[in-house]
Amino acid sequence: MQTRKSNDTAREQIPLVKLLILPKTLPMSAFDRLSERLREKHLYASAASTLGWDQETYLPERGVAHRADQLALLSGKIHELGTSDSFRAALEDAEAEALSGQEANLRELRHHFDLTTRIPQALVEKESQASSMGKAAWAKARADNDFATFAPHLEKLLVIAREKAELWGYEDEPYTALLSCYERGANTTEVANLFDTLQDDLVDIAAQAVEASRQIPADLLLGPAPIESQQTLNREIAESIGFDFSAGRIDTTTHPFCTTLGPCDVRLTTRYDENDFASSLFGILHEAGHGLYEQGTPSDQAHLPSGDPVSLGIHESQSRLWENHVGRSRPFWEKWLPRAQELFPHLRALDLNQFLIAINRSDYTFVRVEADEATYDLHILLRFELERKLLNGELQVKDIPAAWNARFEQLFNMVPSTDTEGCLQDIHWAMGGLGYFPTYSLGNLNAAQLFQTAMGSSTISTAFAKADTAPLLSWLQQEIHSKGATLLPQELMKSATGRPTEGADYLTHLRSRFSA
Amino acid sequence: MQTRKSNDTAREQIPLVKLLILPKTLPMSAFDRLSERLREKHLYASAASTLGWDQETYLPERGVAHRADQLALLSGKIHELGTSDSFRAALEDAEAEALSGQEANLRELRHHFDLTTRIPQALVEKESQASSMGKAAWAKARADNDFATFAPHLEKLLVIAREKAELWGYEDEPYTALLSCYERGANTTEVANLFDTLQDDLVDIAAQAVEASRQIPADLLLGPAPIESQQTLNREIAESIGFDFSAGRIDTTTHPFCTTLGPCDVRLTTRYDENDFASSLFGILHEAGHGLYEQGTPSDQAHLPSGDPVSLGIHESQSRLWENHVGRSRPFWEKWLPRAQELFPHLRALDLNQFLIAINRSDYTFVRVEADEATYDLHILLRFELERKLLNGELQVKDIPAAWNARFEQLFNMVPSTDTEGCLQDIHWAMGGLGYFPTYSLGNLNAAQLFQTAMGSSTISTAFAKADTAPLLSWLQQEIHSKGATLLPQELMKSATGRPTEGADYLTHLRSRFSA
Repeated sequence: MQTRKSNDTAREQIPLVKLLILPKTLPMSAFDRLSERLREKHLYASAASTLGWDQETYLPERGVAHRADQLALLSGKIHELGTSDSFRAALEDAEAEALSGQEANLRELRHHFDLTTRIPQALVEKESQASSMGKAAWAKARADNDFATFAPHLEKLLVIAREKAELWGYEDEPYTALLSCYERGANTTEVANLFDTLQDDLVDIAAQAVEASRQIPADLLLGPAPIESQQTLNREIAESIGFDFSAGRIDTTTHPFCTTLGPCDVRLTTRYDENDFASSLFGILHEAGHGLYEQGTPSDQAHLPSGDPVSLGIHESQSRLWENHVGRSRPFWEKWLPRAQELFPHLRALDLNQFLIAINRSDYTFVRVEADEATYDLHILLRFELERKLLNGELQVKDIPAAWNARFEQLFNMVPSTDTEGCLQDIHWAMGGLGYFPTYSLGNLNAAQLFQTAMGSSTISTAFAKADTAPLLSWLQQEIHSKGATLLPQELMKSATGRPTEGADYLTHLRSRFSA
Repeated sequence: MQTRKSNDTAREQIPLVKLLILPKTLPMSAFDRLSERLREKHLYASAASTLGWDQETYLPERGVAHRADQLALLSGKIHELGTSDSFRAALEDAEAEALSGQEANLRELRHHFDLTTRIPQALVEKESQASSMGKAAWAKARADNDFATFAPHLEKLLVIAREKAELWGYEDEPYTALLSCYERGANTTEVANLFDTLQDDLVDIAAQAVEASRQIPADLLLGPAPIESQQTLNREIAESIGFDFSAGRIDTTTHPFCTTLGPCDVRLTTRYDENDFASSLFGILHEAGHGLYEQGTPSDQAHLPSGDPVSLGIHESQSRLWENHVGRSRPFWEKWLPRAQELFPHLRALDLNQFLIAINRSDYTFVRVEADEATYDLHILLRFELERKLLNGELQVKDIPAAWNARFEQLFNMVPSTDTEGCLQDIHWAMGGLGYFPTYSLGNLNAAQLFQTAMGSSTISTAFAKADTAPLLSWLQQEIHSKGATLLPQELMKSATGRPTEGADYLTHLRSRFSA
């Protein structure tokens, strides 16, 4: 029976009302009533995510305009559901009721409600407009290597970012207001201090790693890699680390990502280079790490903070843990190299040691997204410094290219020959995403600290030595995934590792990996 | 930049309000204000279609429950937008205004509003429940070949169907009320008379076709057909008949269909048999025929009847025209056989005549969806008769299997050995879709009549003789697609062919094809 408009009409005449998501069982607590509203909002939000996923994966070119209208309507609806007076009243009722066990949910809901409602509609519209224009201008400027045409847009976005920061408020400096959107409870001064203590070591480790890698040919892993064989290995490995394909899948996109379309529907994407199986495989290990976190949150609370990942710095810790600590380790490849050699015969030329050296080869690059584990954080330090100064008015937009290149030279000992491979490479600023970058490095630090702590358990480490990661995953599920956003990121790190986010374990890990 | 819940949250904080689809330009006509409401409703409906498409194509197994909740919420929202008092008021204002040029839109909008609002919420819920239960019971009964367990569900659905028919009203008999949901303006008596005049010829032609085909081996087309090669040919052929891949695509599903997700986003699906390229190819020709209709309706009026296909009988005429009149014709394969032989070398054993005989081979089957052009309508005649009698109380549900088999024997000269391949084979009744079946045969009649009329133009027929179908498509776009639902199906047939739907051209076509 074909579905088509005529049937859609028929369907409109027969809404599946019995499925409507507001159970009529009374009496309900104020929290249950609030929860119903959040459930409805989450259904709209996850529908919007599905439309967004389709846009990245399968949407035909000419379908884009209508998709934008659909997403605009849904965004408006979702915003309304989460900011209306009746929602405010429902939230206040639930707060007054103070149902035991829901303290964390109420705390987070209040936090997000206040953030959202402190920004007046006019500013919301102004930012949405500025970032749409900004993204378009950035794409063109990047293509034309012409920073000057992007600068005025970034000026506008900076003004808006400062306005938002003032409306949201902050302890130490405006940047904190933006940073804490992505990293709940984070504070610029603390992050800056943490990064300062690491900088010299990171520069030093990177230099050593790059130097050591100079003797290793760059092309050891390259060779015929048919897409089907890559898909086979990607899937076998994602499954083996615990990604549940009955609640998720892998599709192909230009820019790999992980998105969650529902409590049991996590979509990963990757891209394939038919001469380099490793680029897709490590991409999948990274995205599957995100996916395991999403699959590990309590699915019956997907509409509540307690069912939601807590921050990007914790999210990134999961992706980096599986990509780097597991995926680039000896035990892992003791198990998987033979299989990889079956699928990609050119790898038979390498023994395990050579293979491990090859996948951990390091080199400087101008482009963050191409950076390896040893050099990645230097890209973040640079961006964090610049955007912090921009926000504090210590750096003018027009001076970004010079500042970028000067700082890049200090860290990498080389200078990008164009802004396209320099300060124009990332989309983040163009879409108003200031404050996002530090979460990548926080993720690296958290990953090392969590992995070190887990390995302290002999059950976990003994199994891991045999490439059995099941105990590691259940530890992460128990300590991180199952907690949702009920603990702030730093509380979560303390409860899982006994300490807030520190640099020690990460430096130890990098040294042992790259000084060898 | 990964999209994930954290970002969705961010997005919720920044609704793209500037994109909201209600332009603020005043003064607006009452029709414009109505149009805005329909535009919003259409955005929700097309979002629901997208979720439905994903469910059929890519949704992971465990994502189904959440998807059902999303669709239930959207159905409810869509229903509300189209039935609210404020919508009624907007419709009445537009009717009072009677804006010139919008008569047809207002007529159709009123018609659908009345249909929808005449059904009380309680009955809507009852039907939705009964059809959910019915589908589940049907699937099990079909698997177990156990009609008795399905019977009580069908009883319920019949009672509901009769209730709806009474609420909607009808000229001649209750069946008309259901039929006209799918075939606007159709009338049971007229359809029955039309089918009666055709029955003997159809039985006779089928018998001849089957008899003649007995001498032709059934496996002439079978042979190695790698999926990639099938996809190549499917795409080349769909493109050559005018399907726009910048506004559509092809994916893989168990049951092929065509669905429209937006004004420039038409999705076809097919399945592949690696030993039979023809099953997928003719499926694509059929679905692409539906797709050309969807792509041919005025995309700027997608939210209005004038941008909507008018009926299933007209929709099916487009799919059957491209599948059978074009896709099984000599000129078409004079052009395409060499290409098919390149991709599927086993076809080199056949010359054009043998190939044409092979693709037009006919045989009786118990299963409608496997039936060929010469025997298809007999399956429809049977179903139409039975469901009409069921509704009129001339046939009891418990007597369906006996009635089915008796009638089947008269028409096909054979009797299904199980109800699974008999009266339990179709899902339509189980989901309350009584009145749907006749539209398949109406589509066959319309297809022949439209094709004959088009061939009356020397431009169209001369081009077609060289397998150039562009003039044929532009004629269909002008006479059918561009009209949307501004003319009733029979008015549309008259304006395009000078006559209402008749059987003559169809019988001529079948005779010339199967008596050869």
